[in-house]
Amino acid sequence: MHAITIPEPGGPEALVWDEVPDPVPGEGEVLVEVVAGAVNRADILQRQGFYNPPPGASPYPGLECSGRITALGPGVGGWAVGDEVCALLAGGGYAEKVAVPAGQLLPVPAGLGLKEAAALPEVVCTVWSNVFMVAHLRPGETLLVHGGSSGIGTMAIQLAKAVGARVAVTAGTKEKLERCAELGADILINYREQDFVAELERATDGAGADVILDNMGAKYLDRNVRALAVNGRLAIIGMQGGVKGELNIGALLRKRAAISATSLRARPLEEKAAIVAAVREHVWPLVADGHVRPVVDHEVPMPDAAAAHRVVEDSGHVGKVLLVTPR
Amino acid sequence: MHAITIPEPGGPEALVWDEVPDPVPGEGEVLVEVVAGAVNRADILQRQGFYNPPPGASPYPGLECSGRITALGPGVGGWAVGDEVCALLAGGGYAEKVAVPAGQLLPVPAGLGLKEAAALPEVVCTVWSNVFMVAHLRPGETLLVHGGSSGIGTMAIQLAKAVGARVAVTAGTKEKLERCAELGADILINYREQDFVAELERATDGAGADVILDNMGAKYLDRNVRALAVNGRLAIIGMQGGVKGELNIGALLRKRAAISATSLRARPLEEKAAIVAAVREHVWPLVADGHVRPVVDHEVPMPDAAAAHRVVEDSGHVGKVLLVTPR
Repeated sequence: MHAITIPEPGGPEALVWDEVPDPVPGEGEVLVEVVAGAVNRADILQRQGFYNPPPGASPYPGLECSGRITALGPGVGGWAVGDEVCALLAGGGYAEKVAVPAGQLLPVPAGLGLKEAAALPEVVCTVWSNVFMVAHLRPGETLLVHGGSSGIGTMAIQLAKAVGARVAVTAGTKEKLERCAELGADILINYREQDFVAELERATDGAGADVILDNMGAKYLDRNVRALAVNGRLAIIGMQGGVKGELNIGALLRKRAAISATSLRARPLEEKAAIVAAVREHVWPLVADGHVRPVVDHEVPMPDAAAAHRVVEDSGHVGKVLLVTPR
Repeated sequence: MHAITIPEPGGPEALVWDEVPDPVPGEGEVLVEVVAGAVNRADILQRQGFYNPPPGASPYPGLECSGRITALGPGVGGWAVGDEVCALLAGGGYAEKVAVPAGQLLPVPAGLGLKEAAALPEVVCTVWSNVFMVAHLRPGETLLVHGGSSGIGTMAIQLAKAVGARVAVTAGTKEKLERCAELGADILINYREQDFVAELERATDGAGADVILDNMGAKYLDRNVRALAVNGRLAIIGMQGGVKGELNIGALLRKRAAISATSLRARPLEEKAAIVAAVREHVWPLVADGHVRPVVDHEVPMPDAAAAHRVVEDSGHVGKVLLVTPR
């Protein structure tokens, strides 16, 4: 088969479409013929040499895909050759074929094309596990999403609105904020022009955010703590603004608040399977009935993954960029 | 009645036993004739002028007491004049009488003297709400308790052992660590002579602590994050080592760990009542059957509260110091 390889870490040109050995599904795995993958920021870090795949994972980038099952490894039940699926991956989605633990498979939701289903697994699993399973966002509460127009952001807006929460977003342009509003965001904050702590305080009568989904890490740590409500929960899923930051424990304690930091990729199989099962139970019906839709910016032929990386690195997109395998 | 007043914030001598008006139980409150109160570090901060009572609370120090109900305010059910109780307070325990919201009352557990019951409410509610309700310590997990010989520490050891967890403690002397061992602590770390991160790593085959109960705040923040296990939870309940510290978000994220910071005193009535109800359901049977006992260092006549404060400020005690009202 072909896959995007990274002979030497570097810029987008480091991504090379090359012939590689076919993966072989192991115990509890299936082989998926990939129709589409999607770009995540972790792929860019991997390309740059900053984020090695966890032990046992495919060496190729790609944390999600959609496609058809073409073979079952030993011990797999509940799935059949020919099933159309999407999947959460520890790597290997930028390829024509990938071996996937059965616990990370999801059926293509009713009413959705096979290709666009590739835009769902990583963002849905990340948002559901952090905003709902860890931070327990409840109806009537306020969620602040940083980077509201990103893949994660566009999904967080929709899921939070679907459960009856109020949603505040930050983004860097008026156009991106308008897209967030179309998806249901209630409070729009341009982080280039406005102070999100002050804007959120104004919009919530001083209460702040019950849950914050943050991808900035250190740069926003102090401001996020200030923006939290009493009993608030800050869920950190990225460190685009740095790794180490000053924490005001006194402010956290006065608010009886909590901070969690997670990543999906390094989790053991059983934790990923539990998240995927929860997503299938709670989120898939919302996709099937149209409350939640993947937001796809555009698609790129998979061999041209470098072009997709350039767009995502420049934040020139809204939602997800798909990588479509050649036919 | 008489109460310990604080005419001017300052050292232990700032505590003055003086005649004051009797409290009047309001809607949903009872009047308790106090038999004993107990000293908490928050009382010392209040005496020093650093921790004002929350709005509506008694101006006198004292976050817990035991005694007898002598009057019922309007709207109180389930309690009768003459009942022997202990209670979680927002203040006012250093007094002959105190008005208590009914949701913060607990019966004196079977087999326990009325006086020693004063040693329970604050530590039991703090440990249960943080270690179990927030951090969800589970059987087989490892709890690290800083200040294992304190009132909080001695209760955390017993409760964690009672649910089948493994317990590591830090303390500053061999004698205090021996007392912790008698209460069931498995891993004993002298923080004056040993590095608790290294010792815990050695004792857990590199796994670290699933839950840490911390009273040091900033001073221990980085080391606590290093000592956490994967999926670990750091519960901060005090800031004896400072308010602002550097947080390594990258380390937290790699461990998929969480940090909470809480205090009990400022919580609204309904949250306190929920904690007290959980304590009555889950902890009171453990006290009644002897698995969990209050650890009382010694008692002092309440008018001599200054002497008790000197002992607690010098950490010259193990467990709790009681203040007994004169008869």
